[in-house]
Amino acid sequence: MNKERFEKQLEFILEADKEKNIFRQTHLTGYIRSENDAEHAWHMAMMIYLLREYANDDFDVAKAMMMALIHDIVEIDAGDTYAYDTAALETQAERERLAADRIFGLLPEDQCEEMKALFYEFEAGESPEARFAKSMDNFQPLILNDYNNGRDWREHGVCKSQVVKRQNRSQKGSDFIWNYTKGIIDRNVEKGNIKEG
Amino acid sequence: MNKERFEKQLEFILEADKEKNIFRQTHLTGYIRSENDAEHAWHMAMMIYLLREYANDDFDVAKAMMMALIHDIVEIDAGDTYAYDTAALETQAERERLAADRIFGLLPEDQCEEMKALFYEFEAGESPEARFAKSMDNFQPLILNDYNNGRDWREHGVCKSQVVKRQNRSQKGSDFIWNYTKGIIDRNVEKGNIKEG
Repeated sequence: MNKERFEKQLEFILEADKEKNIFRQTHLTGYIRSENDAEHAWHMAMMIYLLREYANDDFDVAKAMMMALIHDIVEIDAGDTYAYDTAALETQAERERLAADRIFGLLPEDQCEEMKALFYEFEAGESPEARFAKSMDNFQPLILNDYNNGRDWREHGVCKSQVVKRQNRSQKGSDFIWNYTKGIIDRNVEKGNIKEG
Repeated sequence: MNKERFEKQLEFILEADKEKNIFRQTHLTGYIRSENDAEHAWHMAMMIYLLREYANDDFDVAKAMMMALIHDIVEIDAGDTYAYDTAALETQAERERLAADRIFGLLPEDQCEEMKALFYEFEAGESPEARFAKSMDNFQPLILNDYNNGRDWREHGVCKSQVVKRQNRSQKGSDFIWNYTKGIIDRNVEKGNIKEG
């Protein structure tokens, strides 16, 4: 047991605390206020555990949960990029790469490499863990927004093709959740919460 | 795949969202505002994964992480009980039992039983998962408070024996973390952030 190693881990853990101040476009149920990244990640990790039976493939649950817990940590430096903000999406990858180097770089080297690998594996969205974690990254704000009668979609004037383009990636992680998602989207189009087209 | 089962799971997941509105006595780094239960649980679960090498015994990481993610969910009904509020501590167990029945009762029966068992296992603090999760439940607010130069202790006029009484339970999960904790307590007593006695 090495105090120097432990204090590097603590430095990262205390830096991660800042994620509680990074606010997203999604609102909490009841539209009380915007949700922050730490809350979103907590909810996603819980959903990975509770809904794992719907995943298309078996996966390592602890790994997928940790992937969810850290997937937005880069936003401490890079900020939240709204899923439908085309200009910000263009610079997102480079901003997030620099942030990953700095923030995960606080950890001891082995854990820095492990967390960076986990972060990029999530981003690539190809492994079973990443595919299911990404399904939850899509599905979690969708159900909050649906609960709030689609107000986030209405405020941003979002149309169906945009929602489908983002959400249909959930199919790679779970056919069941993608099918359920389609029902939510259609219901919100009918209600006028999501624009046609 | 059963839609009725899935919708029970969603009902629980949406109810859990309310945990983001339950505020604790602990403040975020920088003393920006109080921390809420979801943020605390997110931080704890991440710490379980990153600091597992310091646990006294091997444990199931996914199980301990899920235990951390749900351990405060009963506070949606029962409220946060401050660790040094003696009167509230007396009624805490009964308030939390009723809350566990209602909130976990939203889940399908098998998951309701699983989550209640996980919650009571955490409360009992005897299994390797519960012991390490409880160490993190103690250590997470301790390091935030230490970072904030002990302001939460000062505001509440807390004395050393109270902090030790709570924190020394961390030893059951991790001798290393308990030893490190003693150093943090002593430093804060020296600074006058924690009262002697």
